Amino acid sequence: MLRKHFTAVEPVAISQTGFKGLSARYVLTSADGCPHFAMRVMEFEPQGHTSLHAHLEEHEIFVIEGEPLYIDASGKETRLRVGDAVYVPPEEPHQFKNVGQTMMRLLCLIPILPGANGRSTTPCPIRK
Amino acid sequence: MLRKHFTAVEPVAISQTGFKGLSARYVLTSADGCPHFAMRVMEFEPQGHTSLHAHLEEHEIFVIEGEPLYIDASGKETRLRVGDAVYVPPEEPHQFKNVGQTMMRLLCLIPILPGANGRSTTPCPIRK
Repeated sequence: MLRKHFTAVEPVAISQTGFKGLSARYVLTSADGCPHFAMRVMEFEPQGHTSLHAHLEEHEIFVIEGEPLYIDASGKETRLRVGDAVYVPPEEPHQFKNVGQTMMRLLCLIPILPGANGRSTTPCPIRK
Repeated sequence: MLRKHFTAVEPVAISQTGFKGLSARYVLTSADGCPHFAMRVMEFEPQGHTSLHAHLEEHEIFVIEGEPLYIDASGKETRLRVGDAVYVPPEEPHQFKNVGQTMMRLLCLIPILPGANGRSTTPCPIRK
């Protein structure tokens, strides 16, 4: 058994184009021996956001803190709350924003596809 | 995108031998289209516990509420706290107990192995 409090894992700023005020804590990945999927904590500062983006990996997300807004490829906005579970299928375009005044944290899991390590995702074109 | 608050998923009592006061909410599984791994919320009443058990699936766990005790095959006890991430490798014997006075909740993820649906695990012998 391996145990670590998520705050013991240093956050790494994400500098991807269109992302702002966003860091990742790579809590459980290939580096920990995880064979199939990885656990990250994504931290958004107030007004922080991703771009509308898509990747080969699906997401399974659990909202642990803050006030997320989810935006789909059509621009439809959905407010999320702590305790929400969100499934984003592979290749589905999605965007997250922190619309609260405090840090927003998403537990964000991805499969570890062949050749990947569970830290970053594999980009793919946005199909609207 | 599929969203559901975990409390909107009905808990199902687990009647497995050696388990007590334990229910599962099958939040994201094959039934939701998840291709690789599944998200469950395991709920333990005060004094609720699993047996010492093992299965082919690894666990990635995130403590969302309560006071868990983790017990390994040698009997070693580890207190966990909210925000802890726990990786239990495939086939590693493990036991959880609620040693608090309130409900304990673990976000507990497993891979969906071939032929499985992400609800239950595939038992294997306990090797000490």
